[in-house]
Amino acid sequence: MRILSYLHQGRPSYGLRVDGGIVDLSRRLGPALNSARALIEQNAWARVAPLQHSAPDFGLDAVQLLPALPDPGTIVCIGLNYEEHRLETGRPKAEHPAIFLRIAESLQAHDAPLVIPRESEQFDFEGELAVVIGRRGRRITAEQALSHVCAYACFNDATVRDWQNHTHQFTPGKNFPGTGAFGPDLVTPDELPADGIVTLETRVNGQVMQHASTAQLIFSIPRLIAYVSTFMTLQPGDVIVTGTPGGVGAKRKPPLWLRDGDVVEVEISHVGLLRNRCVKED
Amino acid sequence: MRILSYLHQGRPSYGLRVDGGIVDLSRRLGPALNSARALIEQNAWARVAPLQHSAPDFGLDAVQLLPALPDPGTIVCIGLNYEEHRLETGRPKAEHPAIFLRIAESLQAHDAPLVIPRESEQFDFEGELAVVIGRRGRRITAEQALSHVCAYACFNDATVRDWQNHTHQFTPGKNFPGTGAFGPDLVTPDELPADGIVTLETRVNGQVMQHASTAQLIFSIPRLIAYVSTFMTLQPGDVIVTGTPGGVGAKRKPPLWLRDGDVVEVEISHVGLLRNRCVKED
Repeated sequence: MRILSYLHQGRPSYGLRVDGGIVDLSRRLGPALNSARALIEQNAWARVAPLQHSAPDFGLDAVQLLPALPDPGTIVCIGLNYEEHRLETGRPKAEHPAIFLRIAESLQAHDAPLVIPRESEQFDFEGELAVVIGRRGRRITAEQALSHVCAYACFNDATVRDWQNHTHQFTPGKNFPGTGAFGPDLVTPDELPADGIVTLETRVNGQVMQHASTAQLIFSIPRLIAYVSTFMTLQPGDVIVTGTPGGVGAKRKPPLWLRDGDVVEVEISHVGLLRNRCVKED
Repeated sequence: MRILSYLHQGRPSYGLRVDGGIVDLSRRLGPALNSARALIEQNAWARVAPLQHSAPDFGLDAVQLLPALPDPGTIVCIGLNYEEHRLETGRPKAEHPAIFLRIAESLQAHDAPLVIPRESEQFDFEGELAVVIGRRGRRITAEQALSHVCAYACFNDATVRDWQNHTHQFTPGKNFPGTGAFGPDLVTPDELPADGIVTLETRVNGQVMQHASTAQLIFSIPRLIAYVSTFMTLQPGDVIVTGTPGGVGAKRKPPLWLRDGDVVEVEISHVGLLRNRCVKED
């Protein structure tokens, strides 16, 4: 199943992507289940599944998309989780994943502007696979971890490098509004291959910049869930953004910084295609 | 004014600390103003002020305190913001503050257990002044910054050092549940001296470990607000925790780690006294 969140006639709603358009789930499931977050928190997927064969309520062009989960819980981002990217940054090997947080204000929808802040001359892309938590847990074992995942999505963890490098802590460069593109859909695990391995590609103006398989993650999704859930309780609606492969703009020679008008695509096999045009703030 | 958040007869509420007890603000102000967060968001301080001279509704012993703001927005923590602490950590001088985020689950109330996680042998104190935002703003100037502050509070940014040092990013060591003590009160700015300067002291089992004036902050509160509001919109209910002075346990010779039963006090002149007993998890 593929779940979209959007504005329809100015009102926030969400729906199931089907042939020819969208089955509006707020309309079908009523006020107690009027958002993707509510669907996840109530684990109500069994009520959605039968609607996959319904006729659409409207076309995709009738809505303005929101981020794949517009009101997530904690957004836990992983740094340096592909060997090729670790090597290009010159960081030492680590026994544990590097972790920073994003706030929801930093998210952006598919097809909406990726905002280059006026303070920055070093705006960069980072294509990543996002994992959405569906079931609460603390100190989840790696063996149990995948049973806590309810969905996947494409993520562009776009980074204001000059602000990321102000100090050793990444937070400022990772939280400017409209820099974390997330979507278009939340995709349930049954849409992925049985081994969960997908291929990620990031393109800028059509040119391939990053290409990797999630089989190359240094810390696999089960290990990430086990680690993160040790220091915090993972809640339904929390998101783990699993890290970016090599090939970021900052480490190219010369560096490639995103400019006003550039189009960035993050495509992940079985998951989707996330596309955003960069817009430099006035 | 001093605002406490608490459970009273099992229900969450909040009130004004007055001579002899608490004036319950949920009861006095009704369901639209039933939490400190609502008070802040609605900027309804003028409705609270006249109640300072009311008789208390119950004593302090009738309530179980919650963190000073139990449901804050974003909790922005500043690292290395006193010269003495920067020097003891061996970090270079920086032109910008180091910033990491805490999640609300990591907060703890005054008098409640400060939780030493079972995974850690290196649990440490960090006494700090917390600033609560009362008015929304982006790219706030330093000159305007203090008009966005609605309250102050004591904070113990207690840190799981072994997990903080897993990588270069601090997040894991700063987010274990029940490690960020916050309270007891939210204290309005009129309770502080006109220049806003207060003295902070941290004690472990009565022994002074940290002692500093907020005049020694490397990045003043107005500069912090200006910087943070550049990369995110500050919202009513957001909290900025301004950093810890020198004297943390990790940098003592030998290091001083908190143990089960240790009592940590963070006392800030005009703001209050935050006391917590450490409890090692089973």
